[in-house]
Amino acid sequence: MFPTKKVQSLIGQKIQVEVKGGKHILEGTLESADEYLNMHLTSTVEIVDGEISTSLGSVVLRGNNIIIINPIEN
Amino acid sequence: MFPTKKVQSLIGQKIQVEVKGGKHILEGTLESADEYLNMHLTSTVEIVDGEISTSLGSVVLRGNNIIIINPIEN
Amino acid sequence: MFPTKKVQSLIGQKIQVEVKGGKHILEGTLESADEYLNMHLTSTVEIVDGEISTSLGSVVLRGNNIIIINPIEN
Amino acid sequence: MFPTKKVQSLIGQKIQVEVKGGKHILEGTLESADEYLNMHLTSTVEIVDGEISTSLGSVVLRGNNIIIINPIEN
Amino acid sequence: MFPTKKVQSLIGQKIQVEVKGGKHILEGTLESADEYLNMHLTSTVEIVDGEISTSLGSVVLRGNNIIIINPIEN
Amino acid sequence: MFPTKKVQSLIGQKIQVEVKGGKHILEGTLESADEYLNMHLTSTVEIVDGEISTSLGSVVLRGNNIIIINPIEN
Repeated sequence: MFPTKKVQSLIGQKIQVEVKGGKHILEGTLESADEYLNMHLTSTVEIVDGEISTSLGSVVLRGNNIIIINPIEN
Repeated sequence: MFPTKKVQSLIGQKIQVEVKGGKHILEGTLESADEYLNMHLTSTVEIVDGEISTSLGSVVLRGNNIIIINPIEN
Repeated sequence: MFPTKKVQSLIGQKIQVEVKGGKHILEGTLESADEYLNMHLTSTVEIVDGEISTSLGSVVLRGNNIIIINPIEN
Repeated sequence: MFPTKKVQSLIGQKIQVEVKGGKHILEGTLESADEYLNMHLTSTVEIVDGEISTSLGSVVLRGNNIIIINPIEN
Repeated sequence: MFPTKKVQSLIGQKIQVEVKGGKHILEGTLESADEYLNMHLTSTVEIVDGEISTSLGSVVLRGNNIIIINPIEN
Repeated sequence: MFPTKKVQSLIGQKIQVEVKGGKHILEGTLESADEYLNMHLTSTVEIVDGEISTSLGSVVLRGNNIIIINPIEN
């Protein structure tokens, strides 16, 4: 399965995403993803040192700033 | 809803945007956004440590340098 | 007005631009901008701590390394 | 062989990948790769100081944040 | 004149280029540039603290990693 | 000669490449390069402080993370 299809197969599931910038690890439910791996997550939380640090709710992530996408419990 | 459509659904609303560079958090009213997630914000302020630091007014943001888009009060 | 149109509406005006790299703030007159937000500025100066630091004259900026575009006195 | 074809020739093999961000070295089995060098790896582990640090399992990597792709035992 | 045309008008001239990475300032003669602002420079030198530090000769620069292009003596 | 053609003219030769990330300087034989400047190098070594530090063998480099391409002995 191609990488973008793999990501789309995760829609509705909880994923962990590492993004550039403030060294964020985000966890949320994948609502949608497009061919650029732009993503819409809901119930998103930021994880710092393995703990929930901040609740962000609904967020959109720009695909080019996403480094690693990791399904939770996989 | 695709991520870029989700962003366009926020036009007219206040959003928070994390951009690369000086670790900025910006808040402003989303005037327009295109398919690359380039954005035009008005009444934009920079947030440092949760407080308004600088008033920037009308700004254009280059999509590829936007990390996280977060509707305010969502 | 779409973000790239907003930028093109600023041609002939003084703008402030934050670019990646040495944490530059540049000010100059916008001569031209294309759909990628590549820009040609003239009478460009670098601003450090709110003061003019270096006079750069005519410069071309690569769009993807531009973070924030801010019309001056707007 | 073109670079993207070279990568696709590694499908099914273990590869080492250096990605941007937290200076990760990842090792895993290449499941798929597309023309942008987006990749799906399985049995992925993070390597720190030459040792396995964290087990990540199945991950998708955004191509633009991949710096070096290195077949293992090549 | 569009930004990429402005750059092409500099072919044959000495330019200064700031690139990402080791905070390089490079100076060289612009041999060619394409629509992505990829560039071929000859007689290239690296400038550190306003002095020539290293002679690099003929180099190709990837456009997306170029921040500022500055004609010399302009 | 356009920049990408210049790079393709180096196929079969030893080149030095500066890439983003851990501030790598790599040297290797250019096997192939495409229009995005993705590259396949063989007999690749990492150079630290002007000395060979690590032997990497066959590697693929993502074009957007390449900063400077420098033919050796040119």
